[in-house]
Amino acid sequence: MEFNILTPELTRALAAIIGEEYAVLPTDAEGMQHYTHDETEDLRYMPELVLKPKNAAEISRIMRLCHENIIPVTPRGAGTGLSGGALAVHGGVVLSTERLNAIIQIDEQNLQATVEPGVITQVFQEAVIARGLYYPPDPSSRGSCFLGGNLSESSGGPRAVKYGVTKDYVLNMEVVLPTGEITWTGANVLKNATGYNLTQLLIGSEGTLGVITKIVFRLIPYPPQNLVMLVPFRKEEEACAAVSRIFMAGIVPSALEFMERDAIEWTSRYLGLGMVMAEDERAHLLIELDGNDMDLLYKDAERVYEVLETFDVGEILVADTEKQKEDLWRLRRNVGHAVKSNSIYKEEDTVVPRAQLPVLLRGVKEIGERYAFKSVCYGHAGDGNLHINIVKGDMSDDDWDNKLPEGIKEIFRLCVSLGGTISGEHGIGLVQRPYIGIALNEVQLYLMRGIKQLFDPRGILNPGKIF
Amino acid sequence: MEFNILTPELTRALAAIIGEEYAVLPTDAEGMQHYTHDETEDLRYMPELVLKPKNAAEISRIMRLCHENIIPVTPRGAGTGLSGGALAVHGGVVLSTERLNAIIQIDEQNLQATVEPGVITQVFQEAVIARGLYYPPDPSSRGSCFLGGNLSESSGGPRAVKYGVTKDYVLNMEVVLPTGEITWTGANVLKNATGYNLTQLLIGSEGTLGVITKIVFRLIPYPPQNLVMLVPFRKEEEACAAVSRIFMAGIVPSALEFMERDAIEWTSRYLGLGMVMAEDERAHLLIELDGNDMDLLYKDAERVYEVLETFDVGEILVADTEKQKEDLWRLRRNVGHAVKSNSIYKEEDTVVPRAQLPVLLRGVKEIGERYAFKSVCYGHAGDGNLHINIVKGDMSDDDWDNKLPEGIKEIFRLCVSLGGTISGEHGIGLVQRPYIGIALNEVQLYLMRGIKQLFDPRGILNPGKIF
Repeated sequence: MEFNILTPELTRALAAIIGEEYAVLPTDAEGMQHYTHDETEDLRYMPELVLKPKNAAEISRIMRLCHENIIPVTPRGAGTGLSGGALAVHGGVVLSTERLNAIIQIDEQNLQATVEPGVITQVFQEAVIARGLYYPPDPSSRGSCFLGGNLSESSGGPRAVKYGVTKDYVLNMEVVLPTGEITWTGANVLKNATGYNLTQLLIGSEGTLGVITKIVFRLIPYPPQNLVMLVPFRKEEEACAAVSRIFMAGIVPSALEFMERDAIEWTSRYLGLGMVMAEDERAHLLIELDGNDMDLLYKDAERVYEVLETFDVGEILVADTEKQKEDLWRLRRNVGHAVKSNSIYKEEDTVVPRAQLPVLLRGVKEIGERYAFKSVCYGHAGDGNLHINIVKGDMSDDDWDNKLPEGIKEIFRLCVSLGGTISGEHGIGLVQRPYIGIALNEVQLYLMRGIKQLFDPRGILNPGKIF
Repeated sequence: MEFNILTPELTRALAAIIGEEYAVLPTDAEGMQHYTHDETEDLRYMPELVLKPKNAAEISRIMRLCHENIIPVTPRGAGTGLSGGALAVHGGVVLSTERLNAIIQIDEQNLQATVEPGVITQVFQEAVIARGLYYPPDPSSRGSCFLGGNLSESSGGPRAVKYGVTKDYVLNMEVVLPTGEITWTGANVLKNATGYNLTQLLIGSEGTLGVITKIVFRLIPYPPQNLVMLVPFRKEEEACAAVSRIFMAGIVPSALEFMERDAIEWTSRYLGLGMVMAEDERAHLLIELDGNDMDLLYKDAERVYEVLETFDVGEILVADTEKQKEDLWRLRRNVGHAVKSNSIYKEEDTVVPRAQLPVLLRGVKEIGERYAFKSVCYGHAGDGNLHINIVKGDMSDDDWDNKLPEGIKEIFRLCVSLGGTISGEHGIGLVQRPYIGIALNEVQLYLMRGIKQLFDPRGILNPGKIF
């Protein structure tokens, strides 16, 4: 795909659409910085222009002008992505949705909400909880990430195991197509059998098919009670195996998170929590149960204990206070940051059927031995979604750049052979793109490329991503 | 689209792929009968050939041959559809999936099941319940419909209000494309951010994009306890209004079904149940609560009663025995059959945000008065999904054919104006096709037609449906 460079004239015309104060020019090196990277490794790409439009009409005019002039446009939420989806790898325009940040309506009668994509996930969650309602998806970055980004990557988070991922809460979206048309994708209803499901096609398309400008979510009643416990295991694989067994006992926890010893140790140190672990504890499960009724949660907890007793577990910590619960969650949410602060790393977002987790974990360690890399694993074990943090440590740059990718390929091939795939909730973006052929066959890629071509005949929207 | 007629030579070649004993020729008038209709009104279309392949490989060979020769292929499940999706309106081949009827695996470790599309929904439900697992979607026709058809129409049913519709339980599918390629659409995982969501694109595409040959479902633990009540209202609109209020009280029932007085009366008579209703009872809600714990259900029921007391309700019947529960469900499930046995009718599968139900119901009655039609309304009120049965009664054939469609258009425009759409779970198929422009705009239709063209360049798969 050949793109054009932004001329000064075109730059002025684009800035004029939104008002110059909402454009960042490359001459503003400092202002530009923020838009050159996301949270993916240490990658940086300089766009030619950053635009911060206010609404769909402005975005439509921008898209038309860029389509006409074959200028790449990279949509961007909060830049918390972990696959490089918001990086302007072909230059051109970065289109930030930060000013589309209104919660337009919380409809308590219908348990629906209409929001703009630049609303921070946690802000939205708290706004609906204030009305007794619940929006469950909560990626670890929920304090800073945008809902639009969550849709683009089909984000999950710990509660997905009980409540499903972002896609399961989206009823309808307003989007601007790469050619500038503005359309809704569906209707504001819980069931829809009227034509193809454009809503679900756009979700998880990583900003390559359209720019989301409004979202209609469904909400559920807020479950006010919960119970959190941290369970130490003496064998990593038993922690993984316990996950399936808890479901088989008829319990659906609202979170079921796995952390290797290193993940906890590094994070405890990073946050200054000063956690003490017994020598022989190799991994932990963080288990949350939620619901309307505390008595029922205690009953469910009894059944969880019964399952855990069949494994070699240490002393179970049950969080008694809100503070203790928050500390446990802070621990879990900061594993990524802790690893990042420790070493250059790559994070692989593998996912397999949950009972295959022990096999995956064993395989990762074995591959690590052969390729001489250390990995810190944690993630949403209830979903079979294991985040594998490969830390550079004292690996040579040459091995890191040239040998490691072969090891990553082996990990991904293992996932696929177990019935899984290469990204559960981070997306393919830029960094997993070289591996897409491991997960998708030629027929699937042909169909996806055809869909891309249909929506974006000139390939200007978020080029260089997925495939 | 111009199609070719099946030559005797081609007929022989197609039959040879599967073995002649599994082909039905038009010379076999009796054998052909079953394949000329589904459950949609009294429509009949004669195919040129019926094929009953056994597996994806055979279907692939059939598709290649039909693609090459531009012969229409209409995939067919059990023929219980309500929008004419399985009717061979352009002749050609009807491809029945009745022999793809194996439950391949129920994976208790992963709470997944792999099945073929010709399995009857209820057979599958009972097979998983026997393992303590649950597949919630249960369309009224569950005793005879096929899972493949449920996917094609994105079927719902009463439990959707708590558990979601068919699409929410599908992880992965094996499909044969119109051009003959066989591919899986995704992976066997609960979260997937790896490329576009082909799985959800295919679900609800009404057999126009591919023939489903295997399905991987996710399952959940079976909730063993439930509580069913029938609540009479003196005003139809209050019954609708109560629906939203139950959710606002924090309760998510596992079913929340609305039935007008006529729906109950006709069905009670049809089934010989001999139900007696007070003169002034105009509508009923059938409410089901389910879960693991009976005490909790009673607590929830108390909260439901508190909501109901704020409305003008009659005596609430709580089903005490399994027999009573089954009778209430049988009543609900047979409304469609009862109406059908009473008069020629058309069923509209409208859906709106649930708090708009009273507005929709009032509007339907008002439109009915202007166009002189009687309607019997019932459906999944918890989802805002109202089935409007328009009965012919003594309407003239001319009015039925020529005037009524204008009234239906008004109903559909009303749905769309309320944030809803024209089909919640039956699909567009043949009979709603003339109205698709009310629900979908030109941009949406352009994209959908483009997707159809990509998957099926010669337009041979289920032509004449949706758009």
